[in-house]
Amino acid sequence: MIDATTTPLREALRRARRAQRALARATTHQRDEALRAIARRIEAARETILAANADDMARATKLSPAMRDRLLLTPARLDGVVASVRALCDLPDPLGEERLVAERPNGLRVFRRRIPLGVIAVVYEARPNVTVEAASITLRSGNAIALRGGSEALASNRSLAEAVRAGVADVGLDPDVVLFLDDPSRERVAELLGAAGLVDLAIPRGGPALMEFVDAHARVPVIRHGAGVCHVYVDGAAQLPMAAEIAFNAKVSRPGVCNAMETLLVHDTVADALLPSLGRRLADAGVVLHADERAAEALATAGVPSVPATEADWDTEYLALEMAVRVVPSLEAALAHIADHGTEHSAAIVSDDAEAAERFLAEVDASCVLWNASTRFNDGGELGLGAEIGISTTRMHAFGPMSLRELTAEKFVVRGDGQVRR
Amino acid sequence: MIDATTTPLREALRRARRAQRALARATTHQRDEALRAIARRIEAARETILAANADDMARATKLSPAMRDRLLLTPARLDGVVASVRALCDLPDPLGEERLVAERPNGLRVFRRRIPLGVIAVVYEARPNVTVEAASITLRSGNAIALRGGSEALASNRSLAEAVRAGVADVGLDPDVVLFLDDPSRERVAELLGAAGLVDLAIPRGGPALMEFVDAHARVPVIRHGAGVCHVYVDGAAQLPMAAEIAFNAKVSRPGVCNAMETLLVHDTVADALLPSLGRRLADAGVVLHADERAAEALATAGVPSVPATEADWDTEYLALEMAVRVVPSLEAALAHIADHGTEHSAAIVSDDAEAAERFLAEVDASCVLWNASTRFNDGGELGLGAEIGISTTRMHAFGPMSLRELTAEKFVVRGDGQVRR
Repeated sequence: MIDATTTPLREALRRARRAQRALARATTHQRDEALRAIARRIEAARETILAANADDMARATKLSPAMRDRLLLTPARLDGVVASVRALCDLPDPLGEERLVAERPNGLRVFRRRIPLGVIAVVYEARPNVTVEAASITLRSGNAIALRGGSEALASNRSLAEAVRAGVADVGLDPDVVLFLDDPSRERVAELLGAAGLVDLAIPRGGPALMEFVDAHARVPVIRHGAGVCHVYVDGAAQLPMAAEIAFNAKVSRPGVCNAMETLLVHDTVADALLPSLGRRLADAGVVLHADERAAEALATAGVPSVPATEADWDTEYLALEMAVRVVPSLEAALAHIADHGTEHSAAIVSDDAEAAERFLAEVDASCVLWNASTRFNDGGELGLGAEIGISTTRMHAFGPMSLRELTAEKFVVRGDGQVRR
Repeated sequence: MIDATTTPLREALRRARRAQRALARATTHQRDEALRAIARRIEAARETILAANADDMARATKLSPAMRDRLLLTPARLDGVVASVRALCDLPDPLGEERLVAERPNGLRVFRRRIPLGVIAVVYEARPNVTVEAASITLRSGNAIALRGGSEALASNRSLAEAVRAGVADVGLDPDVVLFLDDPSRERVAELLGAAGLVDLAIPRGGPALMEFVDAHARVPVIRHGAGVCHVYVDGAAQLPMAAEIAFNAKVSRPGVCNAMETLLVHDTVADALLPSLGRRLADAGVVLHADERAAEALATAGVPSVPATEADWDTEYLALEMAVRVVPSLEAALAHIADHGTEHSAAIVSDDAEAAERFLAEVDASCVLWNASTRFNDGGELGLGAEIGISTTRMHAFGPMSLRELTAEKFVVRGDGQVRR
């Protein structure tokens, strides 16, 4: 059915849809050629892009150091972006994959075939590299993309999107498969999220404020890439040096990302043996510890300072050198804490007790549950998917890192020789 | 995070969630025992259920004959419902299925494990059998269900839901996994669809009016089981007797269901050979034909009456002995018609030209595309899934019939021996 409502954005989404139908029919080789052309266009526009980013940085004086670091493009980071576009060509193409699922008694042969989702809207914050990574993974999987990045990165994103569109056109495909929203107003993103029938999937990447906006305005299918209040639970049967390495890595290796640990749960029987030395190491790395009473006592024996944890701390995604620590009396208490305060992102148990570990892996509702490994591994590259458009915290379609295959659907294809239904 | 807003419905959804966590840990055997107990409870309550249905029928004087037929429960239909509940026990259990997806160079082993979606809301129209079918397939896959049926079927649905809850309790599981919305007001269904964080998936089954209501009120993930404006395209290279059988079956075998054909497209070169005899057979079966000018001429040669098709006919789901007919000059024209007017439900091509057929199968965006077979086969049982909760017309998570597996998601499970990320 045809919905004739016309606005500039809706018209652009209809053009993206038409262009996407042609892209869906392009061969793997054609889509890979488009990616290589995009990589060349970004290399050719290097100075323009870095200058645009310098403008964004000059305007972004009010951002925190962590946010400024996410906004910054350097020559090395741009090299990384270009390399990630080229690396996509090495991944298997999910499109057109067809598998036989049933041969029916009446002779019908039933297959499922992978198809693109259609037009995907990605709403993200001030990380310009996402512009290219999201566009290239979306195009490789035969989808069109509508990009709406944070306003702080507007100049950087505009120059990168222009390079992407130019690369698509270079190989004779329609550049309208990439739609860049040049208008950073909230009205425009509300219109994008409300474009039922024109957007097949919206992927919002960000914190609670963005998700509240999505709750209020989305009328299209949404897969949230939400906050990660990630947990590491050190069981009574843990090897403590391993537990310390994993907890330290999960917090300190890159504190500003969604798979970083925010809360450490420690079984009461190992709290006194683990927390003083681990706490010292974390404090020396600059980590502020929000501790419950029992954890604070254990930390104090090594002279490690802490601030009293409040209820709000259990629900906080710090994205910084800051974390919460709680001592729990049992595995059950750890599971209950994670059920109450986790955001279904990532949770790890450190234990040599296989029964406890398997129970944790089975019962924790999270996109990625880990046994004796750091939460930082909940990442498309690290889990072997090769690339990701983000990490879904929505428990349908795709839960966890989304790569090429997660940007497709399956339709039923039935082949017969005249069958009718009784 | 805990959202403390309290209403009776939100409290009931929280109880359903708690009960669902226990159900997710139940064994396959326990869930099958629950299904068998539900079947026994329905058998035991047979007279009560039929009496409640008689009350509904007595009140439903304003419904069309087709709608009254959908509302009616007979002893034979109730037997069918009970049999379908027991048959679910024979299907493979998707829960807990775990597959290795990667062994990483650092030694991490990455698995994906099937888990329930959580709390599923099903909003449906006046078919009481859906109450039991939706509840039993949802419970078998480890999910809780919130049922909101059409107000015309309120008494029937209430008595069936009571039997389902009693069966669940019989085997020691918490009956709060089944929530029946006894209040048929629109405010209550709006509250259900708006319960973000408490409902993991809403499945609305119905026509455009319900879908508009969903557009306006849904704040939870939605998979639409929408209208089927289904097409059969008879190509120039079709065997005409086969084409006639398929078209007749697709319309007449059960005109009131979503996978029935609503529009027949015929290639110009075979219109004069096909339409007079097929039209006569359809007219004799009572089918009203809305024909374009060219089709009307061909029909008239056999004295078959038709009414002139309007633009609106191409977008109409008649759900009755009524259909549209259009003669098209080419495969391209048929594809364009389906792209403009199809609802991504079902479409069939009849042709002996493999190239034309494969192009149709590739390019038509629909949950099920068929070659030389009736659209009526887009059904969970017919496609070999064994059972279905409905047919998704949303192109993500599941597209087409949804069975047990489509009511689950996969989480990543990672097993290591102390790995940390560089």
